[in-house]
Amino acid sequence: MALQPKMIRVSLAARSYDIVIGTEVRHQLGARCQALGLGQRCAVITDSKVVKHYAKETLTNLRETGFEPVVITVPAGETAKSLRNVGRCFDQLAAHRLERKSFVVALGGGVVGDLAGFVAATYLRGVPFVQVPTTLLSQVDSSVGGKVGVNLAAGKNLVGAFYQPRLVLCDLATLKTLPPWEFRAGLAEVIKYGIIFDATLFARFERDLPKLLKLETKTLGEVIARCCDIKAKVVGQDETESGLRAILNFGHTIGHALEAISRYGKYLHGEAISIGQIAAAELSTVLAGLPPADAERITDLFRRAGLPTSVQLNKRELEKLLAAMRLDKKVSGGEIKFVLARRIGEVAWGQSVPEDLIRSTLSHQ
Amino acid sequence: MALQPKMIRVSLAARSYDIVIGTEVRHQLGARCQALGLGQRCAVITDSKVVKHYAKETLTNLRETGFEPVVITVPAGETAKSLRNVGRCFDQLAAHRLERKSFVVALGGGVVGDLAGFVAATYLRGVPFVQVPTTLLSQVDSSVGGKVGVNLAAGKNLVGAFYQPRLVLCDLATLKTLPPWEFRAGLAEVIKYGIIFDATLFARFERDLPKLLKLETKTLGEVIARCCDIKAKVVGQDETESGLRAILNFGHTIGHALEAISRYGKYLHGEAISIGQIAAAELSTVLAGLPPADAERITDLFRRAGLPTSVQLNKRELEKLLAAMRLDKKVSGGEIKFVLARRIGEVAWGQSVPEDLIRSTLSHQ
Repeated sequence: MALQPKMIRVSLAARSYDIVIGTEVRHQLGARCQALGLGQRCAVITDSKVVKHYAKETLTNLRETGFEPVVITVPAGETAKSLRNVGRCFDQLAAHRLERKSFVVALGGGVVGDLAGFVAATYLRGVPFVQVPTTLLSQVDSSVGGKVGVNLAAGKNLVGAFYQPRLVLCDLATLKTLPPWEFRAGLAEVIKYGIIFDATLFARFERDLPKLLKLETKTLGEVIARCCDIKAKVVGQDETESGLRAILNFGHTIGHALEAISRYGKYLHGEAISIGQIAAAELSTVLAGLPPADAERITDLFRRAGLPTSVQLNKRELEKLLAAMRLDKKVSGGEIKFVLARRIGEVAWGQSVPEDLIRSTLSHQ
Repeated sequence: MALQPKMIRVSLAARSYDIVIGTEVRHQLGARCQALGLGQRCAVITDSKVVKHYAKETLTNLRETGFEPVVITVPAGETAKSLRNVGRCFDQLAAHRLERKSFVVALGGGVVGDLAGFVAATYLRGVPFVQVPTTLLSQVDSSVGGKVGVNLAAGKNLVGAFYQPRLVLCDLATLKTLPPWEFRAGLAEVIKYGIIFDATLFARFERDLPKLLKLETKTLGEVIARCCDIKAKVVGQDETESGLRAILNFGHTIGHALEAISRYGKYLHGEAISIGQIAAAELSTVLAGLPPADAERITDLFRRAGLPTSVQLNKRELEKLLAAMRLDKKVSGGEIKFVLARRIGEVAWGQSVPEDLIRSTLSHQ
């Protein structure tokens, strides 16, 4: 069943843009780029998995609307978010002679969006870019808000920019080609919005999780739209994370460090922040007054979503994890900062957490 | 003779900053960074030549004012502006555990400033940075205005950002350690300000060139301050080059292409834009009504400054040059755009120039 597309506006003065959510909305790409007055030449950056499903139709769509696209394919997976791949993309943009009004389309998940966005942010000091996120995680999180970047060996997203897309097209139909484990990983970011901002939404997840897991279009569309709406509100108030925007990082301090020490290979981002959110909830019961019953509801929901809830680390791995946390972008004055929950639906950011408490929380899980 | 430092404000709302011009002002670095409230850890990025003259005293100055600096040394010369060196700097910033309030100091010429500025713009999505330009060219041009970036094999400055420094310290004393040919190359940007904006300044150059070449402090200080003042005015009106700022590129379309086809080895930037400005002046007599007498004054002044005024290219090199120009950031709709002069002191930007006219102008020089 095709739903009427939902439109959400991210309000950032001259950098405002629309998020379009619906079934089959990816076919509107060319027409909407025309309406935005973008230049003729463009590059579609995608990965080796997504290219098989959607590259051909995307090229046809762009050509039929008068554009001259080229496809750039990067490897699938988090390790593709490297400076080396950024350089490869640059060389291909130069070979295709992209100009300042030319644009970059990110067709894929969060990795493709972050990488392509950073390429667009820095090529010719910035060319327009459009997000066509094809995973649940990128639709509710990474494609919206303008955080783009790549990883260093030392840590995740240590390099990047704030650079807003001109348009985001979230096509629910693309979620059908997603492996089930990747869809579940995306639910970790979905659940996050309930914890940080909306207790009613959290309760809906507890009720409607089976429908979400069955990809029921109506529920999925409503939930994705609500998540994007929350993200748009937060980003609209604090684009460059001087305050409020930090709440979006709930579970990410430990999550990012887990990804870094396993060299981005072992955990999907969603899996790492599932573990991270549960640990943050436990820290919250000690430091922020989160009722233990709320912490249990959080753990339960992640478990029911089929996401990992704990991690086994030996002493050496635990110290490596803490070292990685000390490199986190949110570190200030040498202190590791956390987002902690006061209750489901309300969090506080910039909370200092003693390292020993992090150690004990992660050890006894 | 030490002069009273001159202060010029670049007015860009929350991104405004001061340029301080004077003898020995580099010793104010630590105190001024303190006044700006910058974080404790910092990285001084410099090159293998400048490091010998100024690194030690800079580190001492920063330490004495309570900072924890680390030095990162890149090779001297334009080829250092590469993605590879950007990556090396990132790894060292991570190893020194720079935080979001930490800062990067660019100590050196335009290459160091552009590279360090891009590193600062993108590390942790942006950390503060401070320019301490030690060459004439970087003092009057590249250290002011926030254009930062690196080169690709395909062309100069194809990758970058607009990212304003928090402070610029132009120390006239550092020009004494500059090789004479590098000082002369810097004069090419100095002379440019007269052509694009200020006929009186141009006339002063014609009169005071001998004093400038002798590094006479009073004349040098006044001229550098006036150039920075013009640049600050232009950038204050058009930070991201949607219009007026393009006039700063007079002579740069051909100049950048010359640098690109010689792989950044043969010409200093100042030498390349000397040739580029004289060619642009000749194109201007045909297309923009520049009086031939003005074009002669321009050529004469560059010649008297000891700068190259023409280039010998065979047919193959000429076509390579045109191909490089087609990759210029100012290309729009496939057309190469020039800044052309109507008279000394007044230019027009975004002017289309037929490729055949570029060919004939560069052939018969």
